[in-house]
Amino acid sequence: MTKLEEYEPLTSETLSSRLGALGALTSRLGDDVGNWRVEEIGDGNLNLVFLVRGAKGTVIVKQALPYIRLVGDSWPLPLSRAFFEYHALIRQAKRDPGSVPEILYFDEDQALIAMEFLDQHIILRRMLIAGDHVSGLGERLGQFIARTAFRGSDLALPIVEKKSDTKLFLDNHALCNITESLVFTDPYYDAELNHHNPAVDGVVAELRDNVQLKSEVQALLTKFVSNSETLLHGDLHTGSVMCAGDSIFVIDPEFATYGPMGFDFGMMLANLVMAFISQPAHRSADKLVSYQSWIREVIEDLVSTFNGEFSALWHSEREGVLFPRSLFEDQHHDANLPLQAKLNEIWEDALGFCGIEMHRRTLSLAHNADFETIEDVERRGGLEAQNLQAGARLIIERRGIEDVSGMMAVVQKP
Amino acid sequence: MTKLEEYEPLTSETLSSRLGALGALTSRLGDDVGNWRVEEIGDGNLNLVFLVRGAKGTVIVKQALPYIRLVGDSWPLPLSRAFFEYHALIRQAKRDPGSVPEILYFDEDQALIAMEFLDQHIILRRMLIAGDHVSGLGERLGQFIARTAFRGSDLALPIVEKKSDTKLFLDNHALCNITESLVFTDPYYDAELNHHNPAVDGVVAELRDNVQLKSEVQALLTKFVSNSETLLHGDLHTGSVMCAGDSIFVIDPEFATYGPMGFDFGMMLANLVMAFISQPAHRSADKLVSYQSWIREVIEDLVSTFNGEFSALWHSEREGVLFPRSLFEDQHHDANLPLQAKLNEIWEDALGFCGIEMHRRTLSLAHNADFETIEDVERRGGLEAQNLQAGARLIIERRGIEDVSGMMAVVQKP
Repeated sequence: MTKLEEYEPLTSETLSSRLGALGALTSRLGDDVGNWRVEEIGDGNLNLVFLVRGAKGTVIVKQALPYIRLVGDSWPLPLSRAFFEYHALIRQAKRDPGSVPEILYFDEDQALIAMEFLDQHIILRRMLIAGDHVSGLGERLGQFIARTAFRGSDLALPIVEKKSDTKLFLDNHALCNITESLVFTDPYYDAELNHHNPAVDGVVAELRDNVQLKSEVQALLTKFVSNSETLLHGDLHTGSVMCAGDSIFVIDPEFATYGPMGFDFGMMLANLVMAFISQPAHRSADKLVSYQSWIREVIEDLVSTFNGEFSALWHSEREGVLFPRSLFEDQHHDANLPLQAKLNEIWEDALGFCGIEMHRRTLSLAHNADFETIEDVERRGGLEAQNLQAGARLIIERRGIEDVSGMMAVVQKP
Repeated sequence: MTKLEEYEPLTSETLSSRLGALGALTSRLGDDVGNWRVEEIGDGNLNLVFLVRGAKGTVIVKQALPYIRLVGDSWPLPLSRAFFEYHALIRQAKRDPGSVPEILYFDEDQALIAMEFLDQHIILRRMLIAGDHVSGLGERLGQFIARTAFRGSDLALPIVEKKSDTKLFLDNHALCNITESLVFTDPYYDAELNHHNPAVDGVVAELRDNVQLKSEVQALLTKFVSNSETLLHGDLHTGSVMCAGDSIFVIDPEFATYGPMGFDFGMMLANLVMAFISQPAHRSADKLVSYQSWIREVIEDLVSTFNGEFSALWHSEREGVLFPRSLFEDQHHDANLPLQAKLNEIWEDALGFCGIEMHRRTLSLAHNADFETIEDVERRGGLEAQNLQAGARLIIERRGIEDVSGMMAVVQKP
């Protein structure tokens, strides 16, 4: 899809001369290309990210590398992920307007996307570690997950369009393979790329010895690889959300794939839960209770908004082949019965994916800063153990956990 | 995929001259092309089927028409279905050798497949109506369904090959759309193409008024359209099986699509159950009990062989990304626990699809001969009512029906 022989990574030095002729950039930055200030600011695991400042404004240029930045060129990764990120972004922009940065320019051969700079916006994960509040956070994330889940599915799309789009994203298998391995499989055995805090050795041994747990996780992997219900973001954690005041954006959908509706939902729940569990190491005692209460409210808002938004779309935009109006509304039959069953299924799956994400973020390759920034390894170990045990219970007991209260009871006393 | 301008339907008169230069045919039929005897014998719903006899032997030539034969040219249907039939046949031949006719020649532009003539073989449905026995029937069908389900899935295939093949078959959407409409949706409301025996008006009204039933059916349709677990035959009924003695072949996979493992299984169960239910109208009293007992044995053999074969493959050929050995056998952990959960899920789905197939074969466009050949409409109505009510219970109660005994109890006293 991307011709490697034409591809060349940008540098801070070459960016202005290579992209300076693009009207899409000069209209935002100004024509004085020689004075553009370019800074490489990528701190993620995969890509180059340039901040480009001109006289008129600022843009972000993101370029894929032909390998995983976190690991190095020993782990090749196709440049085509920029293609899938671009295609996911334009779909997300359509399905939930204003949820993602505006795309200014896309070059498939160079695997680069130029997009709106989110001025003042900070990665949500950092804010949660710092103890900052974001107004409307749970509602906004719940809307995004519900709108993209519903509007990317056979509940809403014409089925031939859905099948054609499923085909397109099936080529993103290299990125999916990372999820299949690092998220679903590696945490549950002594895989080469794993690392964990020795303070949780005992808990890790227990998890890896739990055949029921591993069986449930693999059943959820089965859904991830073959249940192409809707277009997922695919990597929806608190590092993929940027906030400033009440302005909230979702970024970085290069892991986009068709998968089960509970996946993005569960990933986001997990990352909020990990923020909650790790708080005792980041907050002074006088602020801990109120900040944890706020994170819990965010989770409650996320879940109630997801359910409310999905339900509203179910009643207003259900135009696909599934649960057609001809069988329900047109017969004066209530479509709430199947809606509740669908919401229960999504919630149950989300709890399972949540538990898996909690595990992989303490055991597999890519840990998260919520725990990693805790310097006292014993203290960190206690919180990681809570996280691991809660994750296991969420996976195994997911069919019996009815709501956020039930989930948070497990999280707090696993 | 198929260029319509080059396509021209064969006739009994033109076949010899158009195909007589093909070595693949002359080697079977003999070179004396002028003396080939050609007869059009298609009695299915979709295609032209020619029986071609030469001095050396006999072959079958099957050609798709650009519309549905059963309905006429008012319902166009892509010629590409021959392409998907061909690709399904070669995969089935690989995954269960000897299960399908040998392919001699395929012409994509002409949408035609020349294949082995199954001498003496009769369509299974006709044999079941006539009261004939087929030795080893349940075992053979159970093997076919288990082998194709397992070997076409992420349990066995390298995941990139599976994704690539899923893409290929996603283009078979026109045929899938027939299943989505005629099987899953039309039976449950007064759809244009429906017809049914007025003697079952009351039962039909009850079914169509049952919101829980319709919700469960649409949840199963959700699995059919988005759960691409394995390559399905897609239309595995007793009219797609040909038998002679203990020789059993599966034919006609033009509805092939990636879908849930329980689908082919449930379709075949349904058609055996309908053969069972319709027997009182086809057998004299002295033969009824023993022949119904034999059909029940076939069903029992089918289910136990499916479970046994799937289990054997689970232990011997589980080389895909799902339930990897690294998590189970390599840790001295028993992989039987997740196997049982998988078998339970497949059985539960199969019962649901079984009930749906029972409904559509009495209510939707394509009825089956088991009931249609019963001339006494009142008598037929009684058996169809039993069939409809049993189907509804199988769908609604499927999570609680443990085995064939439970299933047949519902079938016999719905």
